[in-house]
Amino acid sequence: MSKTTVPFSRESLEQVLKRRFFFAPAFELYGGVSGLYDYGPPGCAFQANIVDTWRKHFILEEDMLEVDCTMLTPHEVLKTSGHVDKFADWMCKDLKTGEIFRADHLVEEVLESRLKGDKLARGEKVSEEEDEDKKKRKKKVKEIKNVKLDDEVVKEYETILNQIDGFSGPQLGELITKYDITNPATNGKLEPPVEFNLMFETAIGPSGQLKGYLRPETAQGQFLNFNKLLDFNNEKMPFASASIGKSFRNEISPRSGLLRVREFLMAEIEHFVDPEDKKHPRFDNVKDIKLKFLPKSVQESGSNELVEETVGNAVSSGMIDNETLGYFIARIYQFLMKIGVDADRLRFRQHLSNEMAHYAADCWDAELQTSYGWIECVGCADRSAYDLSVHAAKTNEKLVVRQPLAQPITVEKFEVEIEKKKFGPKFRKDAGKVQDWLLSRTQCDLEDLSKELKDNGKIIFTVEGIEDKVELDTSFVTIEKVSKTEHIREFTPNVIEPSFGIGRIIYSIFEHQFWARPEDSDRSVLSLPPLVAPTKVLVVPLSSNPDLQPLTKKVTDYLRSEQIPFKVDDSSASIGKRYARNDELGTPFGITIDFESVKDESVTLRERDSTKQVRGSFEDIVKAVKAITYNGVSWAKGTADLTAFETASE
Amino acid sequence: MSKTTVPFSRESLEQVLKRRFFFAPAFELYGGVSGLYDYGPPGCAFQANIVDTWRKHFILEEDMLEVDCTMLTPHEVLKTSGHVDKFADWMCKDLKTGEIFRADHLVEEVLESRLKGDKLARGEKVSEEEDEDKKKRKKKVKEIKNVKLDDEVVKEYETILNQIDGFSGPQLGELITKYDITNPATNGKLEPPVEFNLMFETAIGPSGQLKGYLRPETAQGQFLNFNKLLDFNNEKMPFASASIGKSFRNEISPRSGLLRVREFLMAEIEHFVDPEDKKHPRFDNVKDIKLKFLPKSVQESGSNELVEETVGNAVSSGMIDNETLGYFIARIYQFLMKIGVDADRLRFRQHLSNEMAHYAADCWDAELQTSYGWIECVGCADRSAYDLSVHAAKTNEKLVVRQPLAQPITVEKFEVEIEKKKFGPKFRKDAGKVQDWLLSRTQCDLEDLSKELKDNGKIIFTVEGIEDKVELDTSFVTIEKVSKTEHIREFTPNVIEPSFGIGRIIYSIFEHQFWARPEDSDRSVLSLPPLVAPTKVLVVPLSSNPDLQPLTKKVTDYLRSEQIPFKVDDSSASIGKRYARNDELGTPFGITIDFESVKDESVTLRERDSTKQVRGSFEDIVKAVKAITYNGVSWAKGTADLTAFETASE
Repeated sequence: MSKTTVPFSRESLEQVLKRRFFFAPAFELYGGVSGLYDYGPPGCAFQANIVDTWRKHFILEEDMLEVDCTMLTPHEVLKTSGHVDKFADWMCKDLKTGEIFRADHLVEEVLESRLKGDKLARGEKVSEEEDEDKKKRKKKVKEIKNVKLDDEVVKEYETILNQIDGFSGPQLGELITKYDITNPATNGKLEPPVEFNLMFETAIGPSGQLKGYLRPETAQGQFLNFNKLLDFNNEKMPFASASIGKSFRNEISPRSGLLRVREFLMAEIEHFVDPEDKKHPRFDNVKDIKLKFLPKSVQESGSNELVEETVGNAVSSGMIDNETLGYFIARIYQFLMKIGVDADRLRFRQHLSNEMAHYAADCWDAELQTSYGWIECVGCADRSAYDLSVHAAKTNEKLVVRQPLAQPITVEKFEVEIEKKKFGPKFRKDAGKVQDWLLSRTQCDLEDLSKELKDNGKIIFTVEGIEDKVELDTSFVTIEKVSKTEHIREFTPNVIEPSFGIGRIIYSIFEHQFWARPEDSDRSVLSLPPLVAPTKVLVVPLSSNPDLQPLTKKVTDYLRSEQIPFKVDDSSASIGKRYARNDELGTPFGITIDFESVKDESVTLRERDSTKQVRGSFEDIVKAVKAITYNGVSWAKGTADLTAFETASE
Repeated sequence: MSKTTVPFSRESLEQVLKRRFFFAPAFELYGGVSGLYDYGPPGCAFQANIVDTWRKHFILEEDMLEVDCTMLTPHEVLKTSGHVDKFADWMCKDLKTGEIFRADHLVEEVLESRLKGDKLARGEKVSEEEDEDKKKRKKKVKEIKNVKLDDEVVKEYETILNQIDGFSGPQLGELITKYDITNPATNGKLEPPVEFNLMFETAIGPSGQLKGYLRPETAQGQFLNFNKLLDFNNEKMPFASASIGKSFRNEISPRSGLLRVREFLMAEIEHFVDPEDKKHPRFDNVKDIKLKFLPKSVQESGSNELVEETVGNAVSSGMIDNETLGYFIARIYQFLMKIGVDADRLRFRQHLSNEMAHYAADCWDAELQTSYGWIECVGCADRSAYDLSVHAAKTNEKLVVRQPLAQPITVEKFEVEIEKKKFGPKFRKDAGKVQDWLLSRTQCDLEDLSKELKDNGKIIFTVEGIEDKVELDTSFVTIEKVSKTEHIREFTPNVIEPSFGIGRIIYSIFEHQFWARPEDSDRSVLSLPPLVAPTKVLVVPLSSNPDLQPLTKKVTDYLRSEQIPFKVDDSSASIGKRYARNDELGTPFGITIDFESVKDESVTLRERDSTKQVRGSFEDIVKAVKAITYNGVSWAKGTADLTAFETASE
């Protein structure tokens, strides 16, 4: 494909996406709601094709168990998972105007704008992209002031900006005070940052007493169904569940179009694996794939230089923690290549320790480069046993795998024995609670309790739902280490989670595949791969002459029976105009029906990117379209048996 | 297919659906939340296949414009659509216990139970289904008391039950008082019914000031995008948009499993049509389809007898209002047949005037018969111009079609002329509001205002946002009828809306296709059509002998390359057991690999319902599977070239 030399313009792209109704702000008629977008017909079809490709690439090829869980989620579940306490951003309020700012974004923007002002004051050039940024991102900072800064201050600002994702709320508050950051519009003083939980809250049922949220991720539903899934999988490990659906995030002040929205489509995999064996049976299939990495160590040294390496070496060197994580990183890469991501603008960045989500043990993001910078589009996290453990502890249900041991083993472990007869009279209705508490202790807890019981002759502890402290002496309970022969190994699986933000991927592909024809920069093209393009074929009768209609119907009936999505354009616009319109829609093929066609049922096939044309019977042409679109055959190979067709330039 | 003589048991069906994880109560680990369900792998695949079939049957074949709009919807939109005021059920509270009842359901259950008690007291038999109902539906009324009622009371009860969908809240309150209906558990007195809005409410953004709801239907998003869709369709009429996605309904006290849930998948079509021409170009294709109707007139005469009629006759006789409505009713029927609905348990029931949704001008429901009675699964409503009109009026944006007239026409219409120079000084900042108010009046309004102005020399009116009444005399405004030549016809389209509740359809198909083998009532079968069955093929190596593994891999690789969803069962269970398990999963085909297969690569193909078997090369067998599954070929025709294979009974 002959990509253009015309420089990329976000403005042109946005105009095309709007004009062709790929997407639009939701409720625009009512003034719109920021962070909410609707997909129009081509956006919706593109999204559906990406989801379909995802389903085949992951669920079918890897034999995953797809589930569809509810978005409404009761408070208790998300309290346990940690989201009620930790799924939050920091916001600052200007008490005078009532305006609310996301603290990290505000610090970032103000410091960036000061650095730009410094550059201008020093007579340096500010890059055009930065300039465009300023115009298009609806930044809070409307105006750059040319003020020169001390060299030392410049350095401080740069250091802060490099670490901006790692600051806590109080630290952001200190930065705001230290660097005198105010409401950029009014210069008004800001309140110190406070936490704002990003979940949408609602009440389930008529009483109003069951608090719930819209899920922030699809993962929790998958974890809660773990036992049923393991059973469905005939107890075989490892296995993965997967889910495609909307999740929600009540962003403080979303902008950046599709990259930061309040309601978004996710596709998430939870791969359950033995923590003692994270090898992957198909790792050999992917180990030679070379990828661009940005590991933690490089970032910590203050650099952004990419490390190019095979997945095999990345795992064997320990840069990627284990085979399963490496396997999925490679599979993510393969998927992104199928759907139109530019390999040169994809990197895998490892999370720094202080930016990791509260549940993650290790995490790599597939980041795509756009005019907004490098954007996290797929996360690939090792959530360890965190989620299954906390839900099991909270509900007192086991979420474990039990496997027969080849050789029985002898283990020493602490066990609790309870004098049940004495419990009833002492604790009455609370007896069950006390027992449950004791029986759900970890081995570590039990070691401590055993020591306490031995040392003091009693143990004292607090049980949720019982007001007074509970006190038990040795006549009620014994806690001792015993030797046991075990035939079954019981373990909580670890979870490797590849998690895809479909909307962000979609937008990045738009940027990666948008270009203008060098001969005419107004003629822009979206080079979406045929596999995922919204419509595969535009059928173009040369004119509205009724003689062309019977064959047009024959061709479209045939396309429909072959289940190839197509559109007919029988408008009176010129052929060139009709194709130009569909270049913007990303339609990869055009079939032209002319007066020659009526004689012998031959038609012309046009390829979008090269505008090359070939001719043949309409059945052969459709066969070529099918092979190229669905079987990954190249244009050259797919049309080898057809006749090249020369035409005046469009 | 040889369906069984073993009577249907809802209990067995539910056990199978649970055991095979078609679906399960969501958050079961946490005790569950009523009205919320998760789909497990087979349920999820079945749902995805139904959605895929829907997309092909409607969106692709009818060339509809699919959109994907947000679920989060701001208050103002749903206030305008009428949902804030009217999307509600009536509930009664027992102030002592805090229990909340849905008023119509409570009246229904209590009267039904009294009628049953009366039957028992009269020594009549209560049907088993009614008995099962009592057991399984978790009814509020736990116990039937044998109390004989007066003949007259029996008649009154029956009349009320026939009209139960038509009572208003106050009317339900009167019934509760009149018939002394109390909390069935405690006999406690109930508060009069109050309205409960069924939308889930939330706050959008950090300020908490933008109130929003989870959408109760996908329709509003489609209406709000009308102008963009019309433009995308090159201004051509009629056209349809379509949307598949979750909607929400905060049911007061949901039960009946998948039939009444708080979060559900909908597939909705909005077909925009010229109100003066509701013909449909492809009506001829469907006019001879014979359907079972329950028209309004029959219901009003107190009967439930179905009218069997072709769609063509139903439209020409006026029973169905217009061709487009008739066309979609027929297309709904065709779709339901494809996915496994039993034609004998499908009827189209016309809404009574008093049960119609607030926006509907006419409405037919596709109802499916289940053990819960006849269930509304698809609505097909003529929403008239209601939605487009109210949104246009509220936002002052035109939502209309403009078509050039073949012949210019002269129309008489009222027009407003405003003395702009005098408006500014008089109304200052409110001038715009007053003007907008005047310019957005309907012709009827203007006729009245014109008369008022003529009679009184002034008009007086109230404008939202202006405290005092507005008074204008003839020096400010003239409102007169003028003759105008128009070259453009401008109209608000009417909307025909087929709306599918996917979950209800799924559950009904389970009931329609569930049976037990007469030779062994424990062996149950879900006869899901191959097209929509979760998995198409079960691959069964005869034993775990390693000799069988290479061919098993070859067969599964081939199935994967042909994109046919399959599962392998290489467990040590008997062939019969392995097939029985998959009969419950609705898997239509089994491929057995035996020692003969290793020699010549021939395999056996088993059909689920008949348990018939044929043998051939694995490529030919897969070809047959593909033809039967995706091209609607019959078993007899699809396997005609293969060898019949006799085997001992399973």
